[in-house]
Amino acid sequence: MNLADVDVADLAAKIAAGDRQAVAAGLRLIDNRKMRDAAARLLAALPKDRLERSGHLIGITGSPGAGKSTLCSKLIQAWRKQGKRVGVLAVDPSSHRSGGALLGDRIRMLQTHKDDDLFIRSLANRNQLGGLSRESWPMSQVMLAAFDVVLVETVGVGQSEIDVASLTDTTCFIVQPAAGDSIQFIKAGVLEIPHLLVVNKADLGDVARRAAQDLRHALPLQSFDEDWTPPIVLASAVTSQGIDEVVAKFAAHRAHLDDAGRLQQVRRGHQASWALRQLKDEFGTHGMEFLGGEEKLRNAWTREVGTSALDQYQGMRRRLLEAFGAAES
Amino acid sequence: MNLADVDVADLAAKIAAGDRQAVAAGLRLIDNRKMRDAAARLLAALPKDRLERSGHLIGITGSPGAGKSTLCSKLIQAWRKQGKRVGVLAVDPSSHRSGGALLGDRIRMLQTHKDDDLFIRSLANRNQLGGLSRESWPMSQVMLAAFDVVLVETVGVGQSEIDVASLTDTTCFIVQPAAGDSIQFIKAGVLEIPHLLVVNKADLGDVARRAAQDLRHALPLQSFDEDWTPPIVLASAVTSQGIDEVVAKFAAHRAHLDDAGRLQQVRRGHQASWALRQLKDEFGTHGMEFLGGEEKLRNAWTREVGTSALDQYQGMRRRLLEAFGAAES
Repeated sequence: MNLADVDVADLAAKIAAGDRQAVAAGLRLIDNRKMRDAAARLLAALPKDRLERSGHLIGITGSPGAGKSTLCSKLIQAWRKQGKRVGVLAVDPSSHRSGGALLGDRIRMLQTHKDDDLFIRSLANRNQLGGLSRESWPMSQVMLAAFDVVLVETVGVGQSEIDVASLTDTTCFIVQPAAGDSIQFIKAGVLEIPHLLVVNKADLGDVARRAAQDLRHALPLQSFDEDWTPPIVLASAVTSQGIDEVVAKFAAHRAHLDDAGRLQQVRRGHQASWALRQLKDEFGTHGMEFLGGEEKLRNAWTREVGTSALDQYQGMRRRLLEAFGAAES
Repeated sequence: MNLADVDVADLAAKIAAGDRQAVAAGLRLIDNRKMRDAAARLLAALPKDRLERSGHLIGITGSPGAGKSTLCSKLIQAWRKQGKRVGVLAVDPSSHRSGGALLGDRIRMLQTHKDDDLFIRSLANRNQLGGLSRESWPMSQVMLAAFDVVLVETVGVGQSEIDVASLTDTTCFIVQPAAGDSIQFIKAGVLEIPHLLVVNKADLGDVARRAAQDLRHALPLQSFDEDWTPPIVLASAVTSQGIDEVVAKFAAHRAHLDDAGRLQQVRRGHQASWALRQLKDEFGTHGMEFLGGEEKLRNAWTREVGTSALDQYQGMRRRLLEAFGAAES
């Protein structure tokens, strides 16, 4: 498919129908910086009800060595048994040093047979080590339009944690037993509190139970967002202990978001953040002032039902290009 | 002092003379977002030879709980004994949760007597959890103009690591024994490799020695920047073991930078990064294209001796404001 003259409405319809090739083409479109315009049009053409009201977008983080890939692979099996179609976006820090794949490729290697309802894509995290690249959110949306569960997996403590929370419905942090640092980070309030904490390698016995206990004590007593107390689950990718419980807790958090009518609000907030970040990258704070200020736009885009940031983005961009046209002369 | 009509040339001269009140006023000026212009003028007025050729700007990072503050306090004592004047900029992640001071205030509490040649300033890291705020670099420059050694201390693994490396001459990472995560991060190539690694709490004996060994094995074999092999030092803030060695290693790295004539190049690179980031924040990629592209500016500002990014910044900003003036109507 030639990306330059892509028919975004057609591509969006194929993505929504779950066409794997269309999903791959959509992701390539977003990954191509020269196609910024087409990528924005594609996002705006994806079915609004899927992006705002259905599916489940889950973020998974944890230190290297915590066993994320094997655990994700078990979770994927469990979802597939429930008949759910699963997309995985693995955001690897681009390490010039190790050069090795940490996430997506490992999950892929763990798959024992070809499965047409599982789609895995690795995304190198270009020069934004520690955080997610700006393509992560639009890519997750393409996958959300095509699959029932979308996992965004990343490595890290700190910025990655926060970035993942800013683009998913539910966040999960995987800890390995005896991971002193992770718990120190939570104690110090440096970590965003995820919706679900999993202590992996429960097969190690006491040391895992102790880690779970430490975590329970490390979590601050203050109430969390939205009256949700993050469960702590002991799991093992080796024995499959706890896998069903993790899946059930994810479903419980998703139901909680539905009950409270918050899912749409959360997702519209993420749409607004993406659009604002794009505009700000291109036109700076000076450009945002020209449009009346960031907060005004965010409020309008988050609250007004019927029109969304994805609908508005291109019009705003055109206005700025016209006003600042001098720059192109 | 009324910041609005501050005489920046006078303030810069007082800062360079080591006047503590002037340093404090300079830091306030930079911290005040309404004073962006005056802050840039202050930076440009600081003595160029101090900023580019003298003093030592050291970054210290590490996980919460690694004992950074007590160790820093010992290092400060050692430098003070050498007659060096020391400034500390402690960049705390602003935790809405813990609310507690992690860094600067702790060092302050550890001081046993009033010392006019030690200046400590805490900087809350507003909504940029995990990374350093944009004020960190200009603040470090004000302190560099006034003191012999400037420590920038921050909490974190990942983004903070990278940010600290982008504003200091020498970076040091403090690990606590049994800090599995830190070593995992280094193995995975997620961490920038610091110039010096300190395993703190050496008084714990075997566990500390093991951690040092693990670190030695975790460090990639490839050559590091500038033919510098990062030493790993065992230290203890309790017994003072290794403190003199850490101080000596810092001096060795500083001498290495001098020998190779790289100090000025590194610092001019940081000046250019600051100026480019300021312009990009305000005018976006669109504005950078107007000026001929980021790389062109970076090259000019880093290479041309005689004129620096600090000298050029305001002229560039005025050009952009004139070109995009429409935005203010």
